[in-house]
Amino acid sequence: MADNWILMVTARTPTNIAVIKYWGKRDEKLILPVNDSISVTLDPEHLCTTTTVAVSPSFDKDRIWLNGEEISLSSGRFQSCLREIRARAGDVEDETKGIKVSRKDWEQLHVHIASYNNFPTAAGLASSAAGLACLVYSLAKLMNVNEDNSRLSGIARQGSGSACRSLYGGFVKWIMGKDEDGGDSIAVQIADEKHWDELVIIIAVVSSRQKETSSTSGMRDTVETSLLLQHRAKEVVPKRIIKMEEAIKNRDFESFAHLTCADSNQFHAVCLDTHPPIFYMNDTSHRIISIVEKWNRSKGTPQVNF
Amino acid sequence: MADNWILMVTARTPTNIAVIKYWGKRDEKLILPVNDSISVTLDPEHLCTTTTVAVSPSFDKDRIWLNGEEISLSSGRFQSCLREIRARAGDVEDETKGIKVSRKDWEQLHVHIASYNNFPTAAGLASSAAGLACLVYSLAKLMNVNEDNSRLSGIARQGSGSACRSLYGGFVKWIMGKDEDGGDSIAVQIADEKHWDELVIIIAVVSSRQKETSSTSGMRDTVETSLLLQHRAKEVVPKRIIKMEEAIKNRDFESFAHLTCADSNQFHAVCLDTHPPIFYMNDTSHRIISIVEKWNRSKGTPQVNF
Repeated sequence: MADNWILMVTARTPTNIAVIKYWGKRDEKLILPVNDSISVTLDPEHLCTTTTVAVSPSFDKDRIWLNGEEISLSSGRFQSCLREIRARAGDVEDETKGIKVSRKDWEQLHVHIASYNNFPTAAGLASSAAGLACLVYSLAKLMNVNEDNSRLSGIARQGSGSACRSLYGGFVKWIMGKDEDGGDSIAVQIADEKHWDELVIIIAVVSSRQKETSSTSGMRDTVETSLLLQHRAKEVVPKRIIKMEEAIKNRDFESFAHLTCADSNQFHAVCLDTHPPIFYMNDTSHRIISIVEKWNRSKGTPQVNF
Repeated sequence: MADNWILMVTARTPTNIAVIKYWGKRDEKLILPVNDSISVTLDPEHLCTTTTVAVSPSFDKDRIWLNGEEISLSSGRFQSCLREIRARAGDVEDETKGIKVSRKDWEQLHVHIASYNNFPTAAGLASSAAGLACLVYSLAKLMNVNEDNSRLSGIARQGSGSACRSLYGGFVKWIMGKDEDGGDSIAVQIADEKHWDELVIIIAVVSSRQKETSSTSGMRDTVETSLLLQHRAKEVVPKRIIKMEEAIKNRDFESFAHLTCADSNQFHAVCLDTHPPIFYMNDTSHRIISIVEKWNRSKGTPQVNF
């Protein structure tokens, strides 16, 4: 077989917005969270990552480009995803091109990855969730991995926690799990994208600059220094998860809106209760929230939530 | 005795800045807090209220002017203070003017109160603390009330919770107390104003507009809706109070700064964890905090706190 063949797969994955927030890991390496979380996956026509993965015997190392710029693949998170997908690779045959890759060949072959976000990166819009989910999904297709989305979500989780939730459309729960190896920390779909299609999500970009504190280091600081986080994770979130699942199943917007706002506020609260404090809202965010609150109050029932 | 005499007392009371915050009442009417708090009283040469109280048989009702504008005295808070002070009034004699007021006369006499703040009112600088402390103190002088500052603090508390802490200079603790009638919810001095006079307090006014949410209604909303407040009040603050008293006694700036910042952050955190969320910081506050954090980190030990 010649050395100049190339196989490519392109996939597109939407971002997701948590309505019960993930903030805080109990295991940094495996990316295991301190609580369950629930999100809504956006329409892939809107905010999404598009990733093309290619394999060729002529590639001498794994490489990745983000938004046209090459970045390092050396982080443990990328490496975990590559390792886990390679370990599950299957035989691939492209008869028209005369290409045949057997399961064991994947350990020797290198991939090139090109990923584009059609929205601001690292600005609070879950770019890493969409990005890592898309990476895992496209690599799994390329390498003919025979696993369901739930298993793939466990791999994407090791790339970026909330990425596990982007492998499903609709309403998705990331179950924190109990196992030490993270085997049960996976995403499941609560309801699909057709279940509640009157629900409209508006993304208001109040700043397209990169966040001053990355989610990874921010969460670590919160886990280490906040005296409120454990109370939130153990006492508050479990009850909210049950109520939120009910609200979604019943398309109960009043309850959905109330829980979403309360949990967004509490997420920002534990960020503030961190040393040094983390500010993910600015004066514009505050104004938007105040307007939402006044609107809802004037109408008596929630019209919109944040 | 003629009807045209007038007796006047003028007093000046500084504001105080909490280093372990008071946020949340367990009794709205008596103003009893959910946790102890500790503050630093400012130098009266700087931020202060100046209040003149006058009594004359020609006054036909109690009246009050704030910053030159007459305001209503009808609120329960003013009425509580007036009632409590009147109930403890003593005999007053001014021989040079030939005036004699006996204890029982005070029930019939009316007072005029004129109060000035030399700093923005209701903008987060504890104007009501200075104002109500000054009101109670000047009325007590006018009516010759024979009570120590600790008893007077219990009266000022019923005007505005944190007012009780402005009756002492230096470092002051407001003990939350246990009694249902609030008899043991009073302020005590931890250390006087000479104890740690290297300590410099800088007030940066990031906005001189009135707060959008008053402390009174904000606290009520937090008590009713925050799922983090009780954990803060019962589990976090009691330990911090002990550490803060130690830090003050030992003039341990590192510990003092660490606790002050952590508690300021947590106060703002429970404000955020409120429905509707309360924002007492703006982008300028965030920038100041970020600069403080960077400065302290670059020096290795705290140089300044917020």
